[in-house]
Amino acid sequence: MPETARRIVLASRPVGEPKPADFRLEEFPVPQPGPGQLLLRTKWLSLDPYMRGRMSDAPSYAKPVGIDEVMEAGTVSEVAASNNEKFAKGDIVLSRAGWQTHIVSDGSGLRRLDPKLAPISTALGVLGMPGMTAYTGLLEIGAPKAGETVVVSAASGAVGSVVGQIAKIKGARAVGIAGGPDKCNYVKNELGFDDCIDHRGADLAERLKAACPKGIDVYFENVSGPVWDAVFPLLSTFARIPVCGLIAQYSATELTEARYTAPQVFRAILTKRLTIRGFIVTDFAAKHGDFQRDVAQWIKEGKIKYREDIAEGLENAPQAFMGMLKGKNFGKQLVRIAE
Amino acid sequence: MPETARRIVLASRPVGEPKPADFRLEEFPVPQPGPGQLLLRTKWLSLDPYMRGRMSDAPSYAKPVGIDEVMEAGTVSEVAASNNEKFAKGDIVLSRAGWQTHIVSDGSGLRRLDPKLAPISTALGVLGMPGMTAYTGLLEIGAPKAGETVVVSAASGAVGSVVGQIAKIKGARAVGIAGGPDKCNYVKNELGFDDCIDHRGADLAERLKAACPKGIDVYFENVSGPVWDAVFPLLSTFARIPVCGLIAQYSATELTEARYTAPQVFRAILTKRLTIRGFIVTDFAAKHGDFQRDVAQWIKEGKIKYREDIAEGLENAPQAFMGMLKGKNFGKQLVRIAE
Repeated sequence: MPETARRIVLASRPVGEPKPADFRLEEFPVPQPGPGQLLLRTKWLSLDPYMRGRMSDAPSYAKPVGIDEVMEAGTVSEVAASNNEKFAKGDIVLSRAGWQTHIVSDGSGLRRLDPKLAPISTALGVLGMPGMTAYTGLLEIGAPKAGETVVVSAASGAVGSVVGQIAKIKGARAVGIAGGPDKCNYVKNELGFDDCIDHRGADLAERLKAACPKGIDVYFENVSGPVWDAVFPLLSTFARIPVCGLIAQYSATELTEARYTAPQVFRAILTKRLTIRGFIVTDFAAKHGDFQRDVAQWIKEGKIKYREDIAEGLENAPQAFMGMLKGKNFGKQLVRIAE
Repeated sequence: MPETARRIVLASRPVGEPKPADFRLEEFPVPQPGPGQLLLRTKWLSLDPYMRGRMSDAPSYAKPVGIDEVMEAGTVSEVAASNNEKFAKGDIVLSRAGWQTHIVSDGSGLRRLDPKLAPISTALGVLGMPGMTAYTGLLEIGAPKAGETVVVSAASGAVGSVVGQIAKIKGARAVGIAGGPDKCNYVKNELGFDDCIDHRGADLAERLKAACPKGIDVYFENVSGPVWDAVFPLLSTFARIPVCGLIAQYSATELTEARYTAPQVFRAILTKRLTIRGFIVTDFAAKHGDFQRDVAQWIKEGKIKYREDIAEGLENAPQAFMGMLKGKNFGKQLVRIAE
């Protein structure tokens, strides 16, 4: 019986939080590579918050996924068949195959991975897009100096965990914000942050203030919402705020109630001489070599640790994705598609 | 009959827009310089929007003027008597004597001016703090490239006029926003901006959009309010927004109604990769030599023009200041204190 391919397509644009009916699992015949092409079989699928943006058709930096189109994603894939002299059967590559088991590629945009250097799944996490987001946003925009205080939310996640650990490497005080005692313990005791605040409890603003007695010099913004409300009054003069995500806003159906208004934010920008700068990882593509070299070295030295949260099987990708948007994952969210 | 000195002190902290009763004119004996000191007689008094901030005790980058204390200001002053070997009677100096006719100084912080090089009043305007605010904010934060579009509000004023003219020198398209047809004509026809929009008419957003067909790459923010509301939707990807003032907010007694909320602004920061950065001129003190050299040269070459709006006599300073906050001045606002 021939192998069958499977994919998950966008069935409808979510209103508010994505729900199972916004996704549809389809079967299709395994595609056959033509001359110069290769067939990729997905091993690991990456789930990342930015995908929520691709499900909407509001203007953004990337075009949305179309209705009935395969959901976008980075993958680690194995070359299952090759008519392309640059790749051999069995090669492991970083690809953007999307939420599906198979894809035909002409080889462009693929990066070959060496399984001996690092577990291949790390190409989607600490040594991939999330790690590079942390590295470039923190170092190019945040630019923490020794003794300064760096605060990052989603601190046990793929991006936040790397932000705080690099802050420590640079001699800064790292304070994380995470959801629940298990994540906070991990951030403090395993990752070595100086402190971690549970955003689920009462008095977030008070507890964050106590953890940042000298104010906040760098706030790595990836969630917005109540965490921003707690951070804002604590920002120091000349604080830098790299903005790489706004998870709390992604599924908002109406304008979020924000504690601080735009005029209040602008007043602080002026009086505290703040820098607020948005970025996406591809803006700093020229830094990819530096990132690979530094982070691989720091992992080897034990200065950067990482954690993965693994869902099993393509059919469970929607549930894992919806959970991730609510912070249910603990570490970089992956889906294992094939052994 | 001995000469009498005069000063204007802060009588009360304004609630909303400053009113005449918030100021008090006082007479006092001309102070006598002690050993090593000198007596300064004010010739020109500078009025600038930042002084509104100093009248309030809300936290800011500088401490407020105290009740019954002399209002702060930069001045151009003449040395009337000197017991200090570094200064001679008749020297002209840039000082911060405040809103008063006389002050005793120990000589520190004074900068001697050469009346042959430029009219001495320009040390308070195009060759002084406002000119340097324009120069550093535009070049260090805005960094306009040839062909980009630069928008500046209060375009006929001390800062805005220099911002637009430097933008032109750098090959950018300069679009001003000003109040009334006279100012707009001046900005276009005298200063050489590509366009100037009257913010007093209807459909500000539509007219600004027509003047910026390729969007806005640099917005030099010095007023906020409805001008920001018109600028915001037009910002291009990677736009830079130096924030040096928020005149429209300074006298607000309650939170300004802003068309765009903080979450909307943050969404644009992320999706358009905006940079918003506050600054005050002293943050770039290291650039003072470059500023003096470049702007003096550009004035000599006719590439930078300037205009002064002169009130006569210390007693008229409050009225001129209150008018300036409403945009009634036309050019750099000065008060002539003595011939």
